Amino acid sequence: MNIDMITAAAARLDGHVRRTPLLSSPFLDEIAGRRVFVKAECLQHTGSFKARGGWSAVSALTEAQRKAGVIAYSSGNHAQGVARAAAAHGSPCVIIMPANAPAIKIANTRALGAEVVLYDRATEDRDAIGLRLSTERGLTLIKPFDDAQVMAGQGTTGLEIAAQAAARGITNADVLICCGGGGLTAGVALALEASAPGLRARPCEPEGFDDTARSLATGQIQRNAAAEGSICDAIVTPQPGDLTFPIMQRLCGPGLVVSDDDCLRAMALAFARLRIVIEPGGAAALAAALFHGDSLQGDAVIAIATGGNVDPDTFTRAIAMDT
Amino acid sequence: MNIDMITAAAARLDGHVRRTPLLSSPFLDEIAGRRVFVKAECLQHTGSFKARGGWSAVSALTEAQRKAGVIAYSSGNHAQGVARAAAAHGSPCVIIMPANAPAIKIANTRALGAEVVLYDRATEDRDAIGLRLSTERGLTLIKPFDDAQVMAGQGTTGLEIAAQAAARGITNADVLICCGGGGLTAGVALALEASAPGLRARPCEPEGFDDTARSLATGQIQRNAAAEGSICDAIVTPQPGDLTFPIMQRLCGPGLVVSDDDCLRAMALAFARLRIVIEPGGAAALAAALFHGDSLQGDAVIAIATGGNVDPDTFTRAIAMDT
Repeated sequence: MNIDMITAAAARLDGHVRRTPLLSSPFLDEIAGRRVFVKAECLQHTGSFKARGGWSAVSALTEAQRKAGVIAYSSGNHAQGVARAAAAHGSPCVIIMPANAPAIKIANTRALGAEVVLYDRATEDRDAIGLRLSTERGLTLIKPFDDAQVMAGQGTTGLEIAAQAAARGITNADVLICCGGGGLTAGVALALEASAPGLRARPCEPEGFDDTARSLATGQIQRNAAAEGSICDAIVTPQPGDLTFPIMQRLCGPGLVVSDDDCLRAMALAFARLRIVIEPGGAAALAAALFHGDSLQGDAVIAIATGGNVDPDTFTRAIAMDT
Repeated sequence: MNIDMITAAAARLDGHVRRTPLLSSPFLDEIAGRRVFVKAECLQHTGSFKARGGWSAVSALTEAQRKAGVIAYSSGNHAQGVARAAAAHGSPCVIIMPANAPAIKIANTRALGAEVVLYDRATEDRDAIGLRLSTERGLTLIKPFDDAQVMAGQGTTGLEIAAQAAARGITNADVLICCGGGGLTAGVALALEASAPGLRARPCEPEGFDDTARSLATGQIQRNAAAEGSICDAIVTPQPGDLTFPIMQRLCGPGLVVSDDDCLRAMALAFARLRIVIEPGGAAALAAALFHGDSLQGDAVIAIATGGNVDPDTFTRAIAMDT
């Protein structure tokens, strides 16, 4: 995994994913006490940066692999990213989702052309189902983060940030990244190392699910005690990936930890000041930029708003928050 | 008023207003039965296209005028657009607002550096206050739409649409525009005439406030019967402007009329499918694209989402709509 894979992914993604804008507001600058820039990946196709990794992985397959098809496990944004890429490449796509996933997510994944296979979390083994299907049909598994081509796709976000920061004269700043398994964080860190060495990638996680922050602090992969319990569902993963962690350990600054309420308030401010929709897990980086500035370096900060797939009830709760 | 003024405005605006993205979603295409593209001016600085006209007008002033300052009447988006431009040009700025305007709009306008003068709608004469202040201080009045430099600034939106449509191979389509006094509609129509003659500008208005549609249909400026009564406050104006109407009459296709509920549903779909925040008056064009497609031409439609300054209660009501 290296910068050449990211620039190659950028070439494959060109014209197929959006170059998302870097947004700002003087009102956010005032709250943070420094200039705040938001990389709005919620405006990406399928509503999250996962469209990048999905496209990168599917477009890197051989003709035979693509014809046979792909498979992914996901109840959320990765499913939609892979499904969109597979459909555009004419590749059959199976997504394995828990039967109790939100109906809208199941419907959206189907609408993007994927065959959705549901399983019962309590009684069925997801991996066994996936293994059986991929063996029977010769499907290629596309993992959500611990896959070099997926990481390379996510890393293209970092190439864009480097160029957008340079255009604004930002040469020394923290780049805050909502972090689950670390695919985006590792990819962006590699891209910044090569193209904007004054920018430092830092993972942001919810309280209780700060496996990456603790892993970076101890130098060893740490697991979370709980499997669920944060509204930031998109970035709740058991532990950093075997491929992503060594990259993060070499390149990333210390992790930041935010509360669920921090994320809801950041969503409310993004609504009022940037007019974008961010999901809770996509707001962790902006929350850190706005409310945890003490540990940041430089007079500017860049936060990636990683996704915007949120149900109306949760969004209503967020924008009713006192900011 | 001509295309040269728009290209000159574009040069003055370069680097100071955002080139907003043209967004899309296969889910919206399916509802509309054609490809739908949304020009997201809600992502513009100050949350609406008015930042363009404000910048254009202030940057076109002489040094002496700029030093003396500017004045505008507005309870909404025009106020913020003018205030931002004036502050950036070091120009004093007075905004005359009704005392019962939403507190957040008054606060935002002040935060952008303007002196806000409040008046009582029932007992005071806005124009008399404005005239006195502008005479005393030598302030230049910047009208919200019937001003050539304001129209030229709004028209830069049309230049961007022409380029973005060409990049997507769209050569024949209606461009739907939320229309109040017609400054944006006229500016965009002129820009499209010069740079994308296959694209046709069409104003979109709320039911009961379709003065422009009726004026276009009859060839004479028509007034609205009521002064208020739509949730689309940003585009409720008494009648088309004296400068804007002749341009619209020469260049625009028939007007489209949408209901308040159409706008709320369009806001809900923009939330779910594009992850952007649109205000009711900024959703009229998207509502027409999605729900009034019978009268559109071509296999693609472009809708300008003109603004995103909406309070949480109204937005909550919108995203709870059945779409």
